Amino acid sequence: MRIGILGSGGVGRTLASSFALLGHEVMLGARTPDNVNAAEWQVETSGLIGSFAETAEFGEVVFNALKGDVALGALVYLKSALVDKVLVDLANPLDFSNGFPPSFTVSNTDSLGEQIQRELPDTYVVKALNTLNTPVAVAPGSLVEATDLFICGNSASAKETVVALLVELGWTPERIRDLGDITSARGTEAYLAIWVRLMPLLGTAKFNVRLVTE
Amino acid sequence: MRIGILGSGGVGRTLASSFALLGHEVMLGARTPDNVNAAEWQVETSGLIGSFAETAEFGEVVFNALKGDVALGALVYLKSALVDKVLVDLANPLDFSNGFPPSFTVSNTDSLGEQIQRELPDTYVVKALNTLNTPVAVAPGSLVEATDLFICGNSASAKETVVALLVELGWTPERIRDLGDITSARGTEAYLAIWVRLMPLLGTAKFNVRLVTE
Repeated sequence: MRIGILGSGGVGRTLASSFALLGHEVMLGARTPDNVNAAEWQVETSGLIGSFAETAEFGEVVFNALKGDVALGALVYLKSALVDKVLVDLANPLDFSNGFPPSFTVSNTDSLGEQIQRELPDTYVVKALNTLNTPVAVAPGSLVEATDLFICGNSASAKETVVALLVELGWTPERIRDLGDITSARGTEAYLAIWVRLMPLLGTAKFNVRLVTE
Repeated sequence: MRIGILGSGGVGRTLASSFALLGHEVMLGARTPDNVNAAEWQVETSGLIGSFAETAEFGEVVFNALKGDVALGALVYLKSALVDKVLVDLANPLDFSNGFPPSFTVSNTDSLGEQIQRELPDTYVVKALNTLNTPVAVAPGSLVEATDLFICGNSASAKETVVALLVELGWTPERIRDLGDITSARGTEAYLAIWVRLMPLLGTAKFNVRLVTE
Protein backbone atom coordinates (compact mmCIF):
# COMPACT_ATOMS: atom_id res chain seq x y z
CA MET A 1 0.00 0.00 0.00
CA ARG A 2 1.17 3.56 -0.68
CA ILE A 3 1.44 5.32 2.67
CA GLY A 4 2.02 9.05 3.09
CA ILE A 5 3.38 10.31 6.39
CA LEU A 6 2.87 14.02 7.03
CA GLY A 7 5.53 15.26 9.43
CA SER A 8 9.24 14.45 9.51
CA GLY A 9 9.73 14.66 13.28
CA GLY A 10 10.45 11.62 15.40
CA VAL A 11 6.87 10.35 15.15
CA GLY A 12 6.76 10.57 11.36
CA ARG A 13 10.20 9.06 10.74
CA THR A 14 9.59 6.16 13.12
CA LEU A 15 6.27 5.35 11.47
CA ALA A 16 7.71 5.76 7.97
CA SER A 17 10.61 3.39 8.68
CA SER A 18 8.30 0.79 10.19
CA PHE A 19 5.87 0.77 7.29
CA ALA A 20 8.75 0.69 4.79
CA LEU A 21 10.21 -2.37 6.58
CA LEU A 22 6.81 -4.04 6.27
CA GLY A 23 7.06 -3.65 2.51
CA HIS A 24 4.82 -0.65 1.94
CA GLU A 25 5.68 2.18 -0.42
CA VAL A 26 6.20 5.10 1.93
CA MET A 27 6.65 8.82 1.36
CA LEU A 28 7.76 11.01 4.25
CA GLY A 29 6.42 14.55 3.90
CA ALA A 30 8.23 17.58 5.24
CA ARG A 31 7.10 21.18 5.35
CA THR A 32 10.12 22.50 3.46
CA PRO A 33 12.15 20.79 0.69
CA ASP A 34 15.46 21.31 2.54
CA ASN A 35 14.22 19.66 5.75
CA VAL A 36 17.22 18.04 7.47
CA ASN A 37 15.21 15.33 9.27
CA ALA A 38 13.63 14.14 6.04
CA ALA A 39 16.93 14.26 4.17
CA GLU A 40 18.65 12.17 6.86
CA TRP A 41 15.79 9.69 6.82
CA GLN A 42 16.09 9.41 3.03
CA VAL A 43 19.83 8.71 3.23
CA GLU A 44 19.32 6.07 5.95
CA THR A 45 16.43 4.28 4.31
CA SER A 46 16.57 5.15 0.61
CA GLY A 47 12.91 6.08 1.09
CA LEU A 48 10.86 8.68 -0.73
CA ILE A 49 10.50 12.17 0.64
CA GLY A 50 8.21 14.92 -0.56
CA SER A 51 6.37 18.07 0.24
CA PHE A 52 3.19 17.87 2.29
CA ALA A 53 1.17 18.22 -0.93
CA GLU A 54 3.15 15.49 -2.73
CA THR A 55 2.84 13.19 0.28
CA ALA A 56 -0.91 13.74 0.57
CA GLU A 57 -1.27 12.98 -3.16
CA PHE A 58 0.99 9.92 -2.93
CA GLY A 59 -0.66 8.10 -0.05
CA GLU A 60 -3.63 5.79 -0.33
CA VAL A 61 -3.60 6.06 3.45
CA VAL A 62 -2.11 9.22 4.96
CA PHE A 63 -0.89 9.63 8.53
CA ASN A 64 -1.08 12.97 10.30
CA ALA A 65 2.11 12.96 12.34
CA LEU A 66 2.22 16.73 12.69
CA LYS A 67 2.32 18.56 15.99
CA GLY A 68 -1.16 19.21 17.32
CA ASP A 69 -0.86 22.97 17.18
CA VAL A 70 -0.07 23.10 13.46
CA ALA A 71 -1.91 20.02 12.16
CA LEU A 72 -5.29 21.56 11.43
CA GLY A 73 -3.84 24.49 9.49
CA ALA A 74 -1.66 22.23 7.35
CA LEU A 75 -4.41 19.69 6.67
CA VAL A 76 -6.93 22.29 5.51
CA TYR A 77 -4.40 23.27 2.86
CA LEU A 78 -4.24 19.59 1.72
CA LYS A 79 -8.00 19.11 1.63
CA SER A 80 -8.42 18.32 -2.08
CA ALA A 81 -5.53 15.82 -2.10
CA LEU A 82 -7.11 13.95 0.80
CA VAL A 83 -10.62 13.53 -0.65
CA ASP A 84 -11.88 9.93 -0.31
CA LYS A 85 -8.71 8.89 1.52
CA VAL A 86 -8.15 7.48 4.99
CA LEU A 87 -6.37 9.99 7.23
CA VAL A 88 -4.96 8.49 10.42
CA ASP A 89 -4.73 11.26 12.99
CA LEU A 90 -2.03 10.67 15.61
CA ALA A 91 -1.82 14.28 16.77
CA ASN A 92 -2.74 15.58 20.20
CA PRO A 93 -3.81 19.20 20.71
CA LEU A 94 -1.21 19.90 23.37
CA ASP A 95 -0.13 23.40 24.31
CA PHE A 96 3.40 23.51 25.73
CA SER A 97 3.54 27.32 25.82
CA ASN A 98 3.47 27.21 29.63
CA GLY A 99 5.92 24.31 29.85
CA PHE A 100 5.35 20.75 31.01
CA PRO A 101 2.83 19.31 31.66
CA PRO A 102 0.99 20.81 28.70
CA SER A 103 -2.62 21.94 28.54
CA PHE A 104 -5.00 21.41 25.62
CA THR A 105 -5.87 23.81 22.79
CA VAL A 106 -9.19 21.99 22.38
CA SER A 107 -10.90 19.60 24.80
CA ASN A 108 -14.05 18.62 26.68
CA THR A 109 -16.87 19.10 24.14
CA ASP A 110 -14.66 19.02 21.04
CA SER A 111 -11.38 17.48 19.91
CA LEU A 112 -8.70 17.85 17.27
CA GLY A 113 -9.95 14.69 15.58
CA GLU A 114 -13.41 16.21 15.23
CA GLN A 115 -12.02 19.55 14.05
CA ILE A 116 -10.08 17.78 11.31
CA GLN A 117 -13.11 15.71 10.28
CA ARG A 118 -15.27 18.86 10.11
CA GLU A 119 -12.72 20.70 7.98
CA LEU A 120 -12.18 17.67 5.70
CA PRO A 121 -15.70 16.22 5.43
CA ASP A 122 -14.83 14.07 2.38
CA THR A 123 -11.84 12.43 4.10
CA TYR A 124 -12.18 9.40 6.39
CA VAL A 125 -10.50 10.51 9.61
CA VAL A 126 -9.47 7.73 12.00
CA LYS A 127 -8.01 8.76 15.33
CA ALA A 128 -5.41 6.18 16.38
CA LEU A 129 -1.95 5.76 17.89
CA ASN A 130 -2.23 9.04 19.81
CA THR A 131 -2.24 7.45 23.28
CA LEU A 132 1.31 6.12 23.36
CA ASN A 133 4.75 7.03 22.16
CA THR A 134 5.73 6.01 18.68
CA PRO A 135 8.49 3.48 19.49
CA VAL A 136 5.82 1.52 21.41
CA ALA A 137 3.18 2.16 18.73
CA VAL A 138 5.34 0.46 16.09
CA ALA A 139 6.60 -2.31 18.39
CA PRO A 140 3.83 -3.25 20.84
CA GLY A 141 5.70 -6.47 21.61
CA SER A 142 8.45 -4.40 23.23
CA LEU A 143 6.25 -4.13 26.33
CA VAL A 144 6.16 -7.09 28.72
CA GLU A 145 2.42 -7.72 28.25
CA ALA A 146 -0.09 -7.13 25.48
CA THR A 147 -1.68 -3.68 25.87
CA ASP A 148 -4.66 -1.85 24.44
CA LEU A 149 -4.95 0.57 21.56
CA PHE A 150 -7.88 2.90 20.97
CA ILE A 151 -9.27 3.93 17.60
CA CYS A 152 -12.33 5.86 16.55
CA GLY A 153 -13.80 7.39 13.43
CA ASN A 154 -17.02 7.73 11.48
CA SER A 155 -16.22 5.19 8.72
CA ALA A 156 -16.27 1.49 9.55
CA SER A 157 -14.36 0.57 6.38
CA ALA A 158 -11.69 3.19 7.08
CA LYS A 159 -11.26 1.75 10.56
CA GLU A 160 -10.90 -1.75 9.03
CA THR A 161 -8.10 -0.44 6.80
CA VAL A 162 -6.34 1.08 9.80
CA VAL A 163 -6.81 -2.01 11.96
CA ALA A 164 -5.15 -4.12 9.24
CA LEU A 165 -2.12 -1.80 9.31
CA LEU A 166 -2.04 -1.89 13.12
CA VAL A 167 -2.07 -5.69 13.10
CA GLU A 168 0.88 -5.60 10.70
CA LEU A 169 2.71 -3.49 13.29
CA GLY A 170 2.10 -6.25 15.84
CA TRP A 171 -1.07 -5.19 17.64
CA THR A 172 -3.36 -7.90 19.00
CA PRO A 173 -6.68 -7.56 17.12
CA GLU A 174 -8.78 -8.10 20.26
CA ARG A 175 -6.91 -5.27 21.98
CA ILE A 176 -7.55 -2.72 19.24
CA ARG A 177 -10.59 -1.05 20.82
CA ASP A 178 -13.00 0.70 18.47
CA LEU A 179 -14.54 3.42 20.64
CA GLY A 180 -17.07 4.47 18.01
CA ASP A 181 -17.36 7.66 16.00
CA ILE A 182 -14.86 10.48 15.86
CA THR A 183 -16.34 12.19 18.95
CA SER A 184 -14.50 9.54 20.98
CA ALA A 185 -11.34 11.45 20.10
CA ARG A 186 -12.40 13.60 23.07
CA GLY A 187 -11.63 10.58 25.22
CA THR A 188 -8.37 9.45 23.66
CA GLU A 189 -6.98 12.99 23.49
CA ALA A 190 -8.05 13.74 27.09
CA TYR A 191 -6.18 10.60 28.18
CA LEU A 192 -2.98 12.52 27.44
CA ALA A 193 -3.70 14.57 30.58
CA ILE A 194 -2.92 11.52 32.70
CA TRP A 195 -0.26 10.19 30.30
CA VAL A 196 1.86 13.32 30.83
CA ARG A 197 1.69 12.73 34.60
CA LEU A 198 2.50 9.03 34.33
CA MET A 199 5.50 9.46 32.07
CA PRO A 200 7.69 11.34 34.62
CA LEU A 201 6.50 9.02 37.42
CA LEU A 202 7.40 5.88 35.47
CA GLY A 203 10.60 7.49 34.20
CA THR A 204 9.92 6.37 30.66
CA ALA A 205 7.62 7.15 27.75
CA LYS A 206 7.63 3.47 26.84
CA PHE A 207 4.49 2.33 28.59
CA ASN A 208 0.87 1.69 27.81
CA VAL A 209 -2.30 0.49 29.51
CA ARG A 210 -3.83 -2.95 29.52
CA LEU A 211 -7.56 -3.14 30.20
CA VAL A 212 -8.51 -5.63 32.88
CA THR A 213 -12.06 -6.84 33.61
CA GLU A 214 -13.61 -9.37 36.01
CA MET B 1 -10.16 5.05 62.54
CA ARG B 2 -13.26 7.26 62.42
CA ILE B 3 -14.25 7.62 58.77
CA GLY B 4 -16.90 10.01 57.53
CA ILE B 5 -18.48 9.38 54.14
CA LEU B 6 -20.23 12.37 52.60
CA GLY B 7 -22.92 11.17 50.21
CA SER B 8 -25.37 8.31 50.62
CA GLY B 9 -25.60 7.27 46.97
CA GLY B 10 -24.19 3.99 45.70
CA VAL B 11 -20.59 5.22 45.95
CA GLY B 12 -20.94 6.37 49.56
CA ARG B 13 -22.82 3.31 50.80
CA THR B 14 -20.40 0.88 49.14
CA LEU B 15 -17.41 2.66 50.67
CA ALA B 16 -19.08 2.93 54.07
CA SER B 17 -19.91 -0.78 54.19
CA SER B 18 -16.38 -1.75 53.15
CA PHE B 19 -14.67 0.38 55.76
CA ALA B 20 -17.13 -0.81 58.44
CA LEU B 21 -16.33 -4.43 57.56
CA LEU B 22 -12.64 -3.61 57.96
CA GLY B 23 -13.37 -2.56 61.54
CA HIS B 24 -13.42 1.21 61.18
CA GLU B 25 -16.00 3.43 62.86
CA VAL B 26 -17.97 4.79 59.94
CA MET B 27 -20.62 7.49 59.64
CA LEU B 28 -22.57 7.82 56.41
CA GLY B 29 -23.64 11.40 55.81
CA ALA B 30 -26.79 12.32 53.93
CA ARG B 31 -28.03 15.72 52.86
CA THR B 32 -31.38 15.37 54.62
CA PRO B 33 -32.20 13.51 57.89
CA ASP B 34 -35.00 11.50 56.25
CA ASN B 35 -32.77 10.20 53.43
CA VAL B 36 -34.04 6.76 52.39
CA ASN B 37 -30.68 5.46 51.14
CA ALA B 38 -28.97 6.28 54.42
CA ALA B 39 -31.84 4.83 56.48
CA GLU B 40 -31.72 1.56 54.51
CA TRP B 41 -27.97 1.38 54.92
CA GLN B 42 -28.33 1.92 58.67
CA VAL B 43 -30.87 -0.92 58.94
CA GLU B 44 -28.68 -3.27 56.90
CA THR B 45 -25.41 -2.52 58.67
CA SER B 46 -26.36 -1.06 62.07
CA GLY B 47 -23.98 1.72 61.08
CA LEU B 48 -24.02 5.37 62.03
CA ILE B 49 -25.74 7.94 59.86
CA GLY B 50 -25.64 11.68 60.20
CA SER B 51 -26.00 15.00 58.48
CA PHE B 52 -23.17 16.27 56.28
CA ALA B 53 -22.04 18.50 59.17
CA GLU B 54 -22.13 15.67 61.72
CA THR B 55 -20.26 13.38 59.32
CA ALA B 56 -17.57 15.97 58.61
CA GLU B 57 -17.13 16.50 62.37
CA PHE B 58 -17.08 12.75 63.06
CA GLY B 59 -14.46 11.67 60.56
CA GLU B 60 -10.73 11.73 61.15
CA VAL B 61 -10.61 11.01 57.44
CA VAL B 62 -13.57 12.18 55.34
CA PHE B 63 -14.51 10.91 51.88
CA ASN B 64 -16.21 13.17 49.36
CA ALA B 65 -18.58 10.73 47.65
CA LEU B 66 -20.90 13.48 46.42
CA LYS B 67 -21.80 14.03 42.80
CA GLY B 68 -19.32 16.28 41.06
CA ASP B 69 -21.81 19.01 40.32
CA VAL B 70 -22.81 19.54 43.97
CA ALA B 71 -19.61 18.58 45.81
CA LEU B 72 -17.90 21.97 45.88
CA GLY B 73 -20.96 23.80 47.16
CA ALA B 74 -21.52 21.29 49.97
CA LEU B 75 -17.86 21.15 51.00
CA VAL B 76 -17.50 24.92 51.28
CA TYR B 77 -20.31 24.80 53.84
CA LEU B 78 -18.33 22.17 55.82
CA LYS B 79 -15.06 24.07 55.72
CA SER B 80 -14.54 24.60 59.46
CA ALA B 81 -15.36 20.96 60.32
CA LEU B 82 -12.75 19.79 57.82
CA VAL B 83 -9.81 21.91 59.03
CA ASP B 84 -6.62 19.83 59.46
CA LYS B 85 -8.37 16.69 58.20
CA VAL B 86 -7.71 14.46 55.23
CA LEU B 87 -10.45 14.76 52.61
CA VAL B 88 -10.42 12.02 49.99
CA ASP B 89 -12.05 13.38 46.86
CA LEU B 90 -13.64 10.70 44.69
CA ALA B 91 -15.88 13.04 42.71
CA ASN B 92 -15.64 13.76 39.01
CA PRO B 93 -16.91 17.05 37.56
CA LEU B 94 -19.20 15.40 35.03
CA ASP B 95 -22.07 17.19 33.37
CA PHE B 96 -24.84 14.83 32.25
CA SER B 97 -27.23 17.64 31.27
CA ASN B 98 -26.81 16.69 27.60
CA GLY B 99 -26.98 12.94 28.28
CA PHE B 100 -24.32 10.29 27.98
CA PRO B 101 -21.39 10.53 27.48
CA PRO B 102 -21.06 13.49 29.84
CA SER B 103 -18.89 16.56 29.43
CA PHE B 104 -16.89 18.27 32.19
CA THR B 105 -17.87 21.31 34.26
CA VAL B 106 -14.16 22.00 34.85
CA SER B 107 -11.18 20.61 32.93
CA ASN B 108 -7.93 21.28 31.09
CA THR B 109 -6.16 23.96 33.20
CA ASP B 110 -8.13 23.31 36.40
CA SER B 111 -9.91 20.45 38.13
CA LEU B 112 -12.49 19.78 40.80
CA GLY B 113 -9.74 18.50 43.10
CA GLU B 114 -7.91 21.82 42.80
CA GLN B 115 -11.11 23.82 43.26
CA ILE B 116 -11.83 21.96 46.50
CA GLN B 117 -8.25 22.44 47.73
CA ARG B 118 -8.42 26.17 46.96
CA GLU B 119 -11.73 26.59 48.80
CA LEU B 120 -10.53 24.49 51.78
CA PRO B 121 -6.89 25.55 52.10
CA ASP B 122 -6.54 24.11 55.63
CA THR B 123 -7.80 20.66 54.60
CA TYR B 124 -5.53 18.00 53.09
CA VAL B 125 -7.27 17.08 49.85
CA VAL B 126 -6.23 13.76 48.28
CA LYS B 127 -7.75 12.86 44.93
CA ALA B 128 -8.19 9.10 44.75
CA LEU B 129 -10.58 6.33 43.66
CA ASN B 130 -12.17 8.55 41.00
CA THR B 131 -10.93 6.50 38.02
CA LEU B 132 -12.95 3.35 38.55
CA ASN B 133 -16.34 2.28 39.78
CA THR B 134 -16.79 1.75 43.47
CA PRO B 135 -17.41 -2.03 43.51
CA VAL B 136 -13.96 -2.40 41.92
CA ALA B 137 -12.46 0.31 44.14
CA VAL B 138 -13.38 -1.65 47.28
CA ALA B 139 -12.54 -5.08 45.81
CA PRO B 140 -9.57 -4.73 43.45
CA GLY B 141 -9.07 -8.49 43.62
CA SER B 142 -12.37 -8.94 41.78
CA LEU B 143 -10.52 -8.16 38.54
CA VAL B 144 -8.50 -10.94 36.93
CA GLU B 145 -5.18 -9.08 37.22
CA ALA B 146 -3.76 -6.45 39.57
CA THR B 147 -4.51 -2.97 38.23
CA ASP B 148 -3.34 0.56 38.93
CA LEU B 149 -4.80 3.27 41.10
CA PHE B 150 -3.90 6.95 40.89
CA ILE B 151 -3.68 9.38 43.77
CA CYS B 152 -2.48 12.95 44.09
CA GLY B 153 -2.47 15.72 46.63
CA ASN B 154 -0.26 18.37 48.16
CA SER B 155 0.39 16.63 51.50
CA ALA B 156 2.73 13.62 51.59
CA SER B 157 1.49 12.55 55.02
CA ALA B 158 -2.16 12.79 53.95
CA LYS B 159 -1.33 10.58 50.97
CA GLU B 160 0.34 8.08 53.30
CA THR B 161 -2.85 7.93 55.36
CA VAL B 162 -4.92 7.32 52.25
CA VAL B 163 -2.51 4.72 50.85
CA ALA B 164 -2.81 2.77 54.13
CA LEU B 165 -6.61 2.70 53.77
CA LEU B 166 -6.31 1.67 50.10
CA VAL B 167 -4.01 -1.20 51.03
CA GLU B 168 -6.62 -2.31 53.58
CA LEU B 169 -9.12 -2.41 50.70
CA GLY B 170 -6.78 -4.77 48.87
CA TRP B 171 -4.74 -2.52 46.61
CA THR B 172 -1.19 -3.55 45.74
CA PRO B 173 1.10 -0.85 47.21
CA GLU B 174 3.35 -0.76 44.13
CA ARG B 175 0.31 -0.13 41.95
CA ILE B 176 -0.93 2.87 43.92
CA ARG B 177 0.62 5.59 41.76
CA ASP B 178 1.30 8.93 43.41
CA LEU B 179 1.08 11.41 40.53
CA GLY B 180 2.24 14.36 42.63
CA ASP B 181 0.42 17.45 43.78
CA ILE B 182 -3.29 18.15 43.44
CA THR B 183 -2.87 19.60 39.93
CA SER B 184 -2.59 15.98 38.75
CA ALA B 185 -6.33 15.76 39.39
CA ARG B 186 -6.52 17.34 35.91
CA GLY B 187 -5.17 14.05 34.62
CA THR B 188 -7.21 11.61 36.68
CA GLU B 189 -10.45 13.53 36.10
CA ALA B 190 -9.77 13.88 32.35
CA TYR B 191 -9.28 10.10 32.20
CA LEU B 192 -13.05 9.84 32.71
CA ALA B 193 -13.44 11.07 29.13
CA ILE B 194 -12.05 7.76 27.88
CA TRP B 195 -13.59 5.73 30.73
CA VAL B 196 -17.10 6.72 29.64
CA ARG B 197 -16.31 5.48 26.11
CA LEU B 198 -14.76 2.23 27.33
CA MET B 199 -17.61 1.31 29.66
CA PRO B 200 -20.25 0.82 26.94
CA LEU B 201 -17.69 -0.91 24.68
CA LEU B 202 -16.70 -3.40 27.38
CA GLY B 203 -20.31 -3.76 28.48
CA THR B 204 -19.38 -3.36 32.13
CA ALA B 205 -18.26 -0.70 34.57
CA LYS B 206 -16.13 -3.29 36.33
CA PHE B 207 -12.81 -2.71 34.65
CA ASN B 208 -9.60 -0.85 35.26
CA VAL B 209 -6.22 -0.29 33.66
CA ARG B 210 -2.93 -2.00 34.34
CA LEU B 211 0.20 -0.07 33.43
CA VAL B 212 2.68 -2.05 31.35
CA THR B 213 6.28 -1.04 30.65
CA GLU B 214 9.22 -2.60 28.82
